Amino acid sequence: MNGENSSADGLKKLRGKASLCFGEPPFILAAASVVGKKEGEGPLGECFDRIEMDSMLGQKTWEQAESELQTRTSKLAIEKSGLKKEDIRYYFGGDLLAQLIATSFGSMDLEFPMFGIYGACSTMGEAMGLGAMTVDGGFAEHVIVTASSHFASAEKQFRFPLEYGNQRPYSATWTVTGCGSVILSKRNSGGKPLARITGMTTGKIIDMQFKDSMNMGAAMAMAALDTMVQNFRDFGVNETHYDKIITGDLGQVGKRLLLDYLFKAGYDIESRYMDCGIEIFDEQTQDTHAGGSGCGCSASVLCGYILPKIRDGVWKRVLFLPTGALLSTVSFNEGQSVPGIAHAVVLEHMEG
Amino acid sequence: MNGENSSADGLKKLRGKASLCFGEPPFILAAASVVGKKEGEGPLGECFDRIEMDSMLGQKTWEQAESELQTRTSKLAIEKSGLKKEDIRYYFGGDLLAQLIATSFGSMDLEFPMFGIYGACSTMGEAMGLGAMTVDGGFAEHVIVTASSHFASAEKQFRFPLEYGNQRPYSATWTVTGCGSVILSKRNSGGKPLARITGMTTGKIIDMQFKDSMNMGAAMAMAALDTMVQNFRDFGVNETHYDKIITGDLGQVGKRLLLDYLFKAGYDIESRYMDCGIEIFDEQTQDTHAGGSGCGCSASVLCGYILPKIRDGVWKRVLFLPTGALLSTVSFNEGQSVPGIAHAVVLEHMEG
Repeated sequence: MNGENSSADGLKKLRGKASLCFGEPPFILAAASVVGKKEGEGPLGECFDRIEMDSMLGQKTWEQAESELQTRTSKLAIEKSGLKKEDIRYYFGGDLLAQLIATSFGSMDLEFPMFGIYGACSTMGEAMGLGAMTVDGGFAEHVIVTASSHFASAEKQFRFPLEYGNQRPYSATWTVTGCGSVILSKRNSGGKPLARITGMTTGKIIDMQFKDSMNMGAAMAMAALDTMVQNFRDFGVNETHYDKIITGDLGQVGKRLLLDYLFKAGYDIESRYMDCGIEIFDEQTQDTHAGGSGCGCSASVLCGYILPKIRDGVWKRVLFLPTGALLSTVSFNEGQSVPGIAHAVVLEHMEG
Repeated sequence: MNGENSSADGLKKLRGKASLCFGEPPFILAAASVVGKKEGEGPLGECFDRIEMDSMLGQKTWEQAESELQTRTSKLAIEKSGLKKEDIRYYFGGDLLAQLIATSFGSMDLEFPMFGIYGACSTMGEAMGLGAMTVDGGFAEHVIVTASSHFASAEKQFRFPLEYGNQRPYSATWTVTGCGSVILSKRNSGGKPLARITGMTTGKIIDMQFKDSMNMGAAMAMAALDTMVQNFRDFGVNETHYDKIITGDLGQVGKRLLLDYLFKAGYDIESRYMDCGIEIFDEQTQDTHAGGSGCGCSASVLCGYILPKIRDGVWKRVLFLPTGALLSTVSFNEGQSVPGIAHAVVLEHMEG
């Protein structure tokens, strides 16, 4: 990049190799979270907007249930924003299922021009980044960003029939039945916004040649590290720049690896670190092993727990960094490794 | 949207409900297309940059072969652009496989910050739109956009084992083994660019309750119509605004439906219409039935055939509109319909 011309070219938002600093940081006007019964019984149960006691959500299949979860959450986010559906220009959505069917069938009735996004469990980070670029770039006044997962549709997609009752190692995570949805807006339309997205760091794929699909935390830890350190470098900061650094679903195993490797790299984030997957379940009583996972894990915890804390000023600046494991049953069964990716957004409290 | 403030807010790029008109239309600096043997034997064979005679591309599995196709095509596009890899900021990529494994494993070695995109066979349109927004919005000087498909990995994913030799109805399409990759840039770096992306129209999901996965042209035709008519309305034009209107892979059945419905709606596009899927194979001699399909169909035809025609001024203004059928084997086997989506970009010739 020609530094001399970068400002004239409007490239002044670029930071380092993979980060952006928004000129007019998009507002998160509203957020909604809807989760399943088990998530409702977990430590964050009271934070979510709605707990669905019927895991089928009145539908006939697990996949339709996840679609319904996405529809309900998106509608609730729109309702909470005070906007009319017509005010919102684009839908950015994703999920874990093959060919994004939960999103396709879950966003259809809303009739938005839509962008299907796939980043495995990092989808909420990827989609919020793209949504923020869309708003900051002047391509929309309001967009909606939604990501979901469902325990039963994910088990069917990636693992074993539920009836089989398979044994899970302690390194395995439990896919969250949940959905989070945010409304990103060019300006504040009256109420108190939850936060602003002031920056983002886009992850690259990191392959550590891990081949254990029951230990995805390990597979994703280095991707989280890579994006986090890239963020620090691109913005010329260190871990103390953030009140809170929050990964998506590394779980207990991935957390330990991340903290250890970061410490060796000269960063001690432990006191300000949190992982959505560890927070959403009580591993002692809920038999969830390493923690929660799935696109809906970081998305629902963001919307139900993190954003209200930022709105209230408990945390002023947060690095939110959902993590994804890039595998399918085909790639796994063919002996391929499980690479990881992590997409970060910088969320900041608004004074006043 | 508050019309009075829209210009001050930088929202002057918005057109109608679903379209954008770029302030500084991104340049398509270079494009590359790599296809399989059968595509090389088709009517457009001479247009493609490279024909891979080994359908495995030296790999062990069909999925790895598709990844290798994506790697080779992306590298070739970068090479043709004259840019260094480091000049390119983001990778926008997608494919048809569950959890985008062809893209994950195919883009990994390039080490770009990457956005995984899923729009079924409309992926190239979706990803080019997002890439163009990224460049026009000042978020990157150069991005790369790549989409692929592979006959054998798609058959395995969606249909039957190749060894089964299943019968295909005449309405079925043949998944293209091919990949297309474009470099989108904020400015012209010396050579003659292929085209500029002056606008885009983002599709919404259209469900006509079609349930025949062997007739995806029919399932996608109404989505193509919806995006096309939306484009005409948003820009206040009709079909004569474009020298060429090009869909992705409607095939013979979808084409007939689209033209008939458009005619009833008051638009006669037949004389300026083309479908990539119909062009890429000779249905008489190649036994491909309704035509080609897959993300790689419209992507490779765009890069090998359409963009050179625009560069040379044969066509001055083209509406390029890849079409996607939103199904998975799970949604289909559970009795769900096959909705469609189509994402359009407006490509214009550069004088001089």
